[in-house]
Amino acid sequence: MKTAGKASTSLDEALAAIRRGSEEILVEAELVERLKEGRPLRVKAGFDPTAPDLHIGHTVLLNKLRQLQDLGHEVSFLVGDFTAMIGDPTGKSATRPALTRDAIAANARTYTDQVFKILDRGRTEVVFNSAWMERMGAADMVRLAACQTVARMLERDDFGKRYRANQPIAIHEFLYPLVQGYDSFALESDLELGGTDQKFNLLMGREVQKHYGQRPQCILTMPLLEGLDGLNKMSKSLGNTVAITDAPNDMFGKLMSISDALMWRYLELLSFEPAERIRRWRDEVGAGRNPRDIKVELAKEIVARFHSRAAADAALAEFEARFRRGESPQDMPAIELLAPSAGLPIAQMLKQGGLTASTSDALRLIGQGAVKIDGERISDRGLVIDAGRTLVVQVGKRRFARITLT
Amino acid sequence: MKTAGKASTSLDEALAAIRRGSEEILVEAELVERLKEGRPLRVKAGFDPTAPDLHIGHTVLLNKLRQLQDLGHEVSFLVGDFTAMIGDPTGKSATRPALTRDAIAANARTYTDQVFKILDRGRTEVVFNSAWMERMGAADMVRLAACQTVARMLERDDFGKRYRANQPIAIHEFLYPLVQGYDSFALESDLELGGTDQKFNLLMGREVQKHYGQRPQCILTMPLLEGLDGLNKMSKSLGNTVAITDAPNDMFGKLMSISDALMWRYLELLSFEPAERIRRWRDEVGAGRNPRDIKVELAKEIVARFHSRAAADAALAEFEARFRRGESPQDMPAIELLAPSAGLPIAQMLKQGGLTASTSDALRLIGQGAVKIDGERISDRGLVIDAGRTLVVQVGKRRFARITLT
Repeated sequence: MKTAGKASTSLDEALAAIRRGSEEILVEAELVERLKEGRPLRVKAGFDPTAPDLHIGHTVLLNKLRQLQDLGHEVSFLVGDFTAMIGDPTGKSATRPALTRDAIAANARTYTDQVFKILDRGRTEVVFNSAWMERMGAADMVRLAACQTVARMLERDDFGKRYRANQPIAIHEFLYPLVQGYDSFALESDLELGGTDQKFNLLMGREVQKHYGQRPQCILTMPLLEGLDGLNKMSKSLGNTVAITDAPNDMFGKLMSISDALMWRYLELLSFEPAERIRRWRDEVGAGRNPRDIKVELAKEIVARFHSRAAADAALAEFEARFRRGESPQDMPAIELLAPSAGLPIAQMLKQGGLTASTSDALRLIGQGAVKIDGERISDRGLVIDAGRTLVVQVGKRRFARITLT
Repeated sequence: MKTAGKASTSLDEALAAIRRGSEEILVEAELVERLKEGRPLRVKAGFDPTAPDLHIGHTVLLNKLRQLQDLGHEVSFLVGDFTAMIGDPTGKSATRPALTRDAIAANARTYTDQVFKILDRGRTEVVFNSAWMERMGAADMVRLAACQTVARMLERDDFGKRYRANQPIAIHEFLYPLVQGYDSFALESDLELGGTDQKFNLLMGREVQKHYGQRPQCILTMPLLEGLDGLNKMSKSLGNTVAITDAPNDMFGKLMSISDALMWRYLELLSFEPAERIRRWRDEVGAGRNPRDIKVELAKEIVARFHSRAAADAALAEFEARFRRGESPQDMPAIELLAPSAGLPIAQMLKQGGLTASTSDALRLIGQGAVKIDGERISDRGLVIDAGRTLVVQVGKRRFARITLT
């Protein structure tokens, strides 16, 4: 895989590459100082080994790590196994189950199999924070806890909201960001990357490093990628994702279905095309070129990244063949339907969306296996679709619609 | 030493003895259940090994422990050395210096030398919480932290006040009450004793035990003893104490100087005389008996406890001889003086208290060694006395006053 960066890049070029698509760099002047030192920086990125399935939203961060590797820096890919093995001892958080060492190792393997489609293995060190956290005693944890105040922790958005809403915050929840911060100290991190929602935790690394007498890391936050609906954050639970394990045709079709505005966003955050070329494309579209051409370039690049150049070419050919046969989702109408808070039953959705004549017609067609959502055949006549989702719905061979439930 | 309790006491008598002078028993029904089991209960009392000097205020709790021992129960005298060795890692709390293992051992020896004037060595186990805390890892500390919420901790009076006043609370401060609670689990405590100001921490023991699946301990709080001034809590910094290492004559004199009201309070909390006898004394004083007689009984009992019966008799004889010579503090006037916030210089105090004709007279007398405060000769002419103190001041052989600075 090739990216825009090169090892021999000048400082200005390097900075421009690092800034591309990023939300915030703190403190940029300190990062410049470190870049001037001319050594490979130690770049940290943490991952929570509870859910190893990656979608392209996750790759925004991975792409930035890869750019940094191409600029000559070293990535510490940190698996937060210490906290994952503890989980939430109160048992109240479904997102923090305690995992066994084996489950974590399996998740980490699945995860790294996927991330090395983007990261440079030669410049990546996969590390587990249990390596240092398991050597720490209770007294060390007390000392670590001393470096932050309760008030500072309650500044974290979610903690503050929960506290004000009288929702319980167990005290160990205050320790996890500190452990994450301590990881930065243990790794002697120069720069930590994370999503914008991680800014508080990344800053914790700076503060813990200072507390232990180490130069504080710089932090770089990347925006959260919008899902295919262009509205919500890309998230498996919202069904608006492109998984990096999606089949080439699915991946290609999903990317061709996005809006033009979202296409530019995805190009900025997902593509390795030089910024220069993307600017030229913008100019061309401004001058009348069909944005569909550019979408094809994006879809091909992404499919090639996670599968192969050949798979990308085949997906394009298949897509165009369908287009010629009049099956193309390109032509499909975009429909907005109002969903009740409990969600909209599928038969209602098909009728209201004009894809079937009636709900009984809809149920019959589902029974015949003639209804697909996002390319998957639907068999459950009782399926209820939640508000906030955007679906590509197909009935029979020719009826398509992109339905958004609001 | 003899106390009111006897090993063969009935349940009702035992309960009455336990209740005497205590502020609160939580949950009394649970304590009754345990007493009915007929086994020696495991009674826990913690001490912070930073300040080993005991005064009789501390002995209120020790007396209750001794009563429990006389009822057949076992005392775990817990030295909180784990937290003492960590101290306050932020360095912001003067009351929490980090102590070395040697300093703690020395403090603990000084402390136990003193407490065994009250406690029964045969039924006392001196334990150090480092024994279990040093075996705990960082993960164990995280699990311990999970058993309480931030909101619950902020219910503790001092934490809540500091939080509302925007004064920093370092996160490790939330861990110390949990460690104290864990000690109850480690000791399988049936009953923990502490001052009323410790109630929150004692309850923490119940909650930690429940969290770890152990039957929660009962708690018993004892009131904080008022100092010789009868107003403030007895405290070395307020100079209103009777130290248990005070010489017999000093101890005797100080106890004879207290008000009649305070005498009844001291009898309730410090004396081992049967409640029955104290009630009879009250009746007698009500019928005209001089309360001074009762004060003599109290002073003799306390001096005998910390020195000997002979020392108590000698102190009484000395006290009465001074009384016959007209030197008795019994006759001295009680004077209230207003002290500026920076305190009142001694020469001013002597003059305003009518003990010297002028400040220069006062300074001269100090120079001659003719001025004593609480029985100690004063040589520092620049001495400044803080507001809130009550002092027995003597000038020459005959001039006495009890001066309270407000």
